Formats: sequence, C-alpha cells, structure tokens
Amino acid sequence: MKKIEVEQKVLAKNDDWARANRERLRAGGIFSFNMISSPGSGKTSLLERTLAALRGELPLAVIEGDIQTDNDAARLRGFGFPVVQINTGGLCHLDASMISRTLDGLDLDALRLLIVENVGNLVCPSSYDLGEDEKVVLISTTEGDDKPLKYPAIFRRATVMIVNKTDLVPYTDFSLERVRANALGINPDLTVFELSCRTGQGLDAWLDWIRSRVAPPPAR
Amino acid sequence: MKKIEVEQKVLAKNDDWARANRERLRAGGIFSFNMISSPGSGKTSLLERTLAALRGELPLAVIEGDIQTDNDAARLRGFGFPVVQINTGGLCHLDASMISRTLDGLDLDALRLLIVENVGNLVCPSSYDLGEDEKVVLISTTEGDDKPLKYPAIFRRATVMIVNKTDLVPYTDFSLERVRANALGINPDLTVFELSCRTGQGLDAWLDWIRSRVAPPPAR
Repeated sequence: MKKIEVEQKVLAKNDDWARANRERLRAGGIFSFNMISSPGSGKTSLLERTLAALRGELPLAVIEGDIQTDNDAARLRGFGFPVVQINTGGLCHLDASMISRTLDGLDLDALRLLIVENVGNLVCPSSYDLGEDEKVVLISTTEGDDKPLKYPAIFRRATVMIVNKTDLVPYTDFSLERVRANALGINPDLTVFELSCRTGQGLDAWLDWIRSRVAPPPAR
Repeated sequence: MKKIEVEQKVLAKNDDWARANRERLRAGGIFSFNMISSPGSGKTSLLERTLAALRGELPLAVIEGDIQTDNDAARLRGFGFPVVQINTGGLCHLDASMISRTLDGLDLDALRLLIVENVGNLVCPSSYDLGEDEKVVLISTTEGDDKPLKYPAIFRRATVMIVNKTDLVPYTDFSLERVRANALGINPDLTVFELSCRTGQGLDAWLDWIRSRVAPPPAR
C-alpha cells in the first residue's frame, strides 16, 4: 500500500538523520536522552526539577518539542540553560532532521548533556529515533498501571521508565508493583524510577542516574 | 512534498468513508459520539459508568479502538451491550474505513446509540472524522489545565469537553476555571462537564446529555 511505502521511506530517511546526530553528539562527548509520555504526565515538571538541581553543575541544553505554543520552553528558560523550542506545526512527534537543524544552532563544545522533551504522545514518538543515547518514558500514577500493556512499543524501546506523581497513589487504584511488573514483562532491562515532582521524593536517584551517564570532561 | 500529498489523499479517502458512515447511522436514527483523550484520562472508566447507568434503558453498542490488547473491551463486556474491539496494529488513531467494516457486523436496526472509544492519543485522532455526530474530548485534572492550549486541534473540533477526576483537584494545581477558560477560548461552543468516575459526582449531567441527544424511537 502506498501510504506504508511512503512511511517506510520517511522512517529510513529519519534513521539517516538520527545516525548523523548520534555521531555528532558522541564525538562531542554529549550524553543525550529523549523524554516521551502522554500529555500531562509531568515531563516539563520533571525538567524544572532537574534543571534546578543541575544548575551550576552540568552544562546542558534542552530541546522542547511542541505542536504549538512555546509555553513549556518559557517555563524552563529561567534556569539559565539554553532552551530551544521546536514547533512541529501539528505533527505528532519530533523527527531527527528537526533535531539536526537545532543542533546547528547550539554551542555543542560547551555541552555535556542534551535533553529532548518530545511532543506529548505515547504512540508516535516511539517510532522516530532522534539520535539520542536513551529514551526515557514517563507515566504518571493517575493514568492507570495497565498503560505499558496498552502502549507497549515505547516501553520496549525505552531504557528508563519514570513513574511520576507517586504522591497521588493513595487517591487512585494504581499499584506501583503492577506497573513495574507490566513494564518489565515487556522490557526486563528497563531501569525504573518512582518519584514525585510535587514533593521531590525519589528525585535524587533520577539525578544520580543522569550524573552517572554523563561522561567526565575530556582531559586537556 | 510527497508525504503530505499522500496524507491529504488518505484524509480525503477517510472523509468519503466518514460521509457514508454518517449517512448510514443517521438513516438508522442512531446517535453517535467519538471519545478522544490521552491514555489514562478515563475514557474506559467513564464508559463503565455510562453503560451501567444506561443498561435496560437505551440499546447501544461500543466500538473500542486500541493499538493492541482487548483489555478495554473485556472491561466493558459485562454490561450486556455489544462491544466490538478494533486493533489498529500500531496505528495511532481509528479511521472511518475501520468503523465502516465494524458497522457491517452490528445489528444497526436494534441500536439507538453508538459510542466509539478512540486510541489514547490527544493528537492524531483529531484529524480523522469517523462519521460520528459529535466528538467528545476528555481531559483529567491531573494532566494540567494548560492542555487545551497545547493541543488545540481536538478542542476546536470537539463539541463536548469532559473534565474527569475532579476528586483529585485538591491534590493538584489544576484549576477548573482555568481549564474552562483555556478551552472556551479555543472553542466557545464547547459544552463542558466536570465529573469524577471514581465518586460518581457530575455523572448525571453527562448521562442527561446523552439522553437528550438520542432521538425518540420511530413510531410504528
């Protein structure tokens, strides 16, 4: 069918761009991850917490993907790191060519970490490699612990799952054990963090994971 | 660009199917709506409440769209209404041809209401008319009251917005006034329902809306 052929060509082209991005970032010693979740799971809130904690410690930049508006980028600009907004113009995901163009405008020599916040969508972004080192999938405790079963592709491709809004567990039927079992059943290698951006509980383990992934600065 | 041309052809073809579905449903005196939200906003929970309330009152059928699994359909089968599962096989939305094939298998003469639960995705389903009478967008209070601004397309195309999980408002920064203002700013004609599937609060107004939309049975 014609639509599928075109999609396969689009994905193959995307993979070429992703490969180039990956080589470029690795050559620069920059660790990168791509945050994927439904709208409202807390990607931007987690980034606010993360940037506040890493201020003065780690030179990083953020690429914000949104269908429309630069509200999220505006929320993050106060932390003093470069934040670049990509508006996809209705498209349901970021792609690697958008990231490539954005990298052209960043001072990569000054960076050790690149964080990409994808469009809020648990489906489409899973197919588009951006050239990142790792995909981080977020789920919040108000979404139901069955979500890894219903949207398995992203849980299969991610290396990290963050369960956000643990402060709301007492008010829901959500089970941390069940979501963990459901996700690990799909991908046993997932690293899992449980945290609350609201209370700050569990954030340290997430921040330590980032620190452990970022390469030491090159010796001069 | 080739991809856009193919997409336009796909959407035009979809509109043809949607038109045929609409004519078929209206000729049969069947009111229909299409429920769209992010994963975990509570579409299936609201349907559980809705089917429980309308049992013995209104002959209806449900079409369940999912990327994978028939978990949601299984949740709804206990109410004694026909529930048909469509697995999209990875596709991020239902389309009108899938609905057409499903209508072929339903006893339309026996129905007065058709409810479609779309794939959990606030972006892609907004572009695909299924032939339904109305689009109902759900948002839950844990997702943030900025979501209409960030994902405006579906709020523009919907006629009804349901704000679910009002029981969780005290534990969040969510403002019912703000989400209403944000949504009505995009689409002043939206009918808004605030409810909690957990406590049952606000459900009656939603059920009355459904009842008001369903045509009286044809005189014999």
